[in-house]
Amino acid sequence: MGAQDTLKIGVLISGSGTNLQAIIDAIDEGLNVEIVKVLSSRPDAYGLERAAQAGIPTVSLSKEVYADPDVANAHIAAQFEQAGAEYLVMAGYMRKIGAQVLDAFPNRVINLHPALLPSFPGAHGIQDAYDAGVKVTGVTVHFANAEYDKGPIIAQRSVPILEGEDIDHLEERIHQVEHELYPWVLAHLAAGDITITPDRKVHIANA
Amino acid sequence: MGAQDTLKIGVLISGSGTNLQAIIDAIDEGLNVEIVKVLSSRPDAYGLERAAQAGIPTVSLSKEVYADPDVANAHIAAQFEQAGAEYLVMAGYMRKIGAQVLDAFPNRVINLHPALLPSFPGAHGIQDAYDAGVKVTGVTVHFANAEYDKGPIIAQRSVPILEGEDIDHLEERIHQVEHELYPWVLAHLAAGDITITPDRKVHIANA
Repeated sequence: MGAQDTLKIGVLISGSGTNLQAIIDAIDEGLNVEIVKVLSSRPDAYGLERAAQAGIPTVSLSKEVYADPDVANAHIAAQFEQAGAEYLVMAGYMRKIGAQVLDAFPNRVINLHPALLPSFPGAHGIQDAYDAGVKVTGVTVHFANAEYDKGPIIAQRSVPILEGEDIDHLEERIHQVEHELYPWVLAHLAAGDITITPDRKVHIANA
Repeated sequence: MGAQDTLKIGVLISGSGTNLQAIIDAIDEGLNVEIVKVLSSRPDAYGLERAAQAGIPTVSLSKEVYADPDVANAHIAAQFEQAGAEYLVMAGYMRKIGAQVLDAFPNRVINLHPALLPSFPGAHGIQDAYDAGVKVTGVTVHFANAEYDKGPIIAQRSVPILEGEDIDHLEERIHQVEHELYPWVLAHLAAGDITITPDRKVHIANA
């Protein structure tokens, strides 16, 4: 991939797809990325409609497909390889990514976590930070690897928790930061700016 | 203590005392705090000179005193009680605070940690964050309790790690934030703004 080529990505979703929408909107505004396929772990995910409205091919998997995670993950890897995806972008995907996918896209699966990793990993990053009483939380974009939530960190943005703020208000502000940060990372990925050092540090040129 | 009274604090140091100096400077500029005693765990700590220059009574403990930590901590608690300290402020104090001190000053011992807790606890918060490759670290002021680095968080400030920044530069910027945040917290403490809820969340009025 040259720096001038459009970056082809696959997006994995499970729900409403607001981060998918943020990427679609950024592409409309000139982000040098093409979404070649959207895959949902749930057939009723609203994000599938967002993809269809944007003319993006979709595939949804049922619970039955996931009965054997190895089979499911081999299927997922094959779907994205056939679609020509160079990178996979997890956008609210609530299933675990398996070794078959990580092996097919080594250092090419990107995840977003709604907290400042390594603090508050897991499925409830916003709530856990709120309950812990921290005063600063944030958003992390990182490479996914076998150790969940522990892959090399690409970018982080802090979000202060305001005095007296309720959890809904905090969630809304964190999602806003997500919707800015994910396209920002993809732009640098498309430009060829992002490198990983042997000690798993990520550098972004022209940041 | 009424909100208008000067807050009397004891400060614990082990080294150069740059945070102590920041508090002394803030007092010179109107911070409503009096340092009633500075205690050092090392007789050669430069912070003792800073205290003496500001006319603050000092006491230093030798390694021999710490041979029995229970005795040492009972001595520390007595020193600060006799000096009339209402709160204790740890400013680069490299010894563990014992139960005798925490019991004598319940929810009244404050510590500063050079990272965004709960990330990177321990003695090397800046280095550990740098080595982990996170993109945002910061400073935490929290109440010390028996579980080190896990007391209720009073205030946090984020510090982004800059692309290509070396550890010395990062340390300098983190120390700058420390020197602003500690007096800020003490001002709110002196004003009676800070409360702890039963679920260990800290609220700051007028923040």
